[in-house]
Amino acid sequence: MKKDTSRKTITESDVAKHAGVSQSAVSRAFTPGASISPKTREKVIKAAEELGYHPNLLARSLVTNRSNIIALAISYLENPFYAQVVRELSQKLRESDRHILLFSAPDGNQPDPDLEKVLRYQVDALILTGTKASPDLKDQCRKAGVPIVQINRKSDLSGISTVCGEDFEAGQIIAQHLLDGGHKRFAYIGGTEGSNTSRIREEGFRDALAKAGIKDVMVRYGANKFEAAAIAVRELLDSKMPPDAIFCASDYMAFAAMDVARNEYGLKVPEDVSVVGFNDVPDASHAAYNLTTYSQPAGALVDEAVKLVDELIENPSKRAQRREVPGELIIRTSSRQKAA
Amino acid sequence: MKKDTSRKTITESDVAKHAGVSQSAVSRAFTPGASISPKTREKVIKAAEELGYHPNLLARSLVTNRSNIIALAISYLENPFYAQVVRELSQKLRESDRHILLFSAPDGNQPDPDLEKVLRYQVDALILTGTKASPDLKDQCRKAGVPIVQINRKSDLSGISTVCGEDFEAGQIIAQHLLDGGHKRFAYIGGTEGSNTSRIREEGFRDALAKAGIKDVMVRYGANKFEAAAIAVRELLDSKMPPDAIFCASDYMAFAAMDVARNEYGLKVPEDVSVVGFNDVPDASHAAYNLTTYSQPAGALVDEAVKLVDELIENPSKRAQRREVPGELIIRTSSRQKAA
Repeated sequence: MKKDTSRKTITESDVAKHAGVSQSAVSRAFTPGASISPKTREKVIKAAEELGYHPNLLARSLVTNRSNIIALAISYLENPFYAQVVRELSQKLRESDRHILLFSAPDGNQPDPDLEKVLRYQVDALILTGTKASPDLKDQCRKAGVPIVQINRKSDLSGISTVCGEDFEAGQIIAQHLLDGGHKRFAYIGGTEGSNTSRIREEGFRDALAKAGIKDVMVRYGANKFEAAAIAVRELLDSKMPPDAIFCASDYMAFAAMDVARNEYGLKVPEDVSVVGFNDVPDASHAAYNLTTYSQPAGALVDEAVKLVDELIENPSKRAQRREVPGELIIRTSSRQKAA
Repeated sequence: MKKDTSRKTITESDVAKHAGVSQSAVSRAFTPGASISPKTREKVIKAAEELGYHPNLLARSLVTNRSNIIALAISYLENPFYAQVVRELSQKLRESDRHILLFSAPDGNQPDPDLEKVLRYQVDALILTGTKASPDLKDQCRKAGVPIVQINRKSDLSGISTVCGEDFEAGQIIAQHLLDGGHKRFAYIGGTEGSNTSRIREEGFRDALAKAGIKDVMVRYGANKFEAAAIAVRELLDSKMPPDAIFCASDYMAFAAMDVARNEYGLKVPEDVSVVGFNDVPDASHAAYNLTTYSQPAGALVDEAVKLVDELIENPSKRAQRREVPGELIIRTSSRQKAA
């Protein structure tokens, strides 16, 4: 990188000269809570405006060890749940004058090797969702004192904090709802094959079905993507004994299931096949789908994650935490209900 | 901000001592293209790994005047078009090892005063979409040498570069498509009232209709939001002479229009009313909507915006640019077609 001389940098010292005050006064004028007379502060701010000076938070971060930047590593941004996480996190951090540095990780169940570059930016913390940290990255973050919090995916690695929904219980509750509706043949469309989130939801679903004497569950994976989920649904509906109840590990895949069932197979939802999703993204309540789903609000997950990040920053020796955010079944018209 | 002493910072000098090399060698080991022997580089990298050292890009940015961070100010993240911009921009910047610092601006047509804080982070450029820059921010960016590029919204301010679709022509083409389909009563649902994008699409739409002798166009605003668009559609369909063709300034609002028309008014789309959107977001092709729309791919807008950012960084005296990215009408089943 060559030095860019076309870009002039206004320094504290320039502002001090222009305002006729000390450099320390300029520094204090831009430090919340620092002692400075209103008159001096006013002089400094006027001079700063005239010169186009902005207190450089990055430079300051070298002194305070705080950049006020939180790295967010995220995949599957075409899935509205993940877009909602970005929106909610960004708005939440705004309250404390912090911002997201975004790392878009490749979809799938492999850690993103490029993510290790995150530490070059001296971020205050790393939040992951839809992707996971490698053991290497975990070690590097520990050495650098950067806490890691995973949203919506339990970690296989000790030392990484997680904020998830009640995945197991939710799977059970959805199975019970479908059993109550008189369904006989059950299918599950998981997200990323091998991901803990997908696996735990499936385990809860199977657990409640097994207690009702049902052992057979058709399982396919939709990779959290619309087209892949559509293919999975076609496989299910093409089978000799197609399911009359499909639980999808995300709303986005449930939309694909409803589209395929209704438009390609001429099936009625829920009369011929019930479809249940997971997340309760805003589109789930729109009339085109009106999807029964397990509400696991992105906002609640994000609030808990930020709380946890702050605790871990405040107390770096705190052990990794596993927190669950409660959710609830939202019954809409995509699933048959218990006969009266 | 108090100094955080719990977090130990490993410095270049620590690494140099540990590796038994000079501090300058450590610096060169982490500078792309710098002269250093492979053996020395290896020593440095081994020492850095052992100590958990990461070359601090923020510190380096004070020397090079490049942070490799591009600020993105964005609103309406629940609208899939804007989520797609985040995804595409993040992936595009990744190619050049740069990242997004995300500012989530409030929805609406007012500049976000908090956005001025963007300059505290010494970002290399500012990209805006779904929101706009204030005259103040523009001046401050100019002084600081930070180029501004607006995506999908023309600017009232000279000195701000923009990358937009062919909004006027698209409005004309959509009007012609609906005229060809034999429609008689036309409505337009704009996005943010007062936004240039919405106004220019409306002008193109009205222009082609006027040439066909049609002066009356019912106009409502949906604020780029689902619920607000649904209210606008109800007003249109409740009127004495409801429209038989509705052009919505975004796909997301068109989804609301289709939901309301079909589910609340029992209308058939397109037999009773045609609906046309704008953007061609992935959901537009899903069977639940199968929306006729004007394709204005987020990826193409983002590519052009990054190209422009790089030109403006390279050549700070370059004048602000206005670029248009071509699009095309995608005819699906939500609009009646010309009788054979």
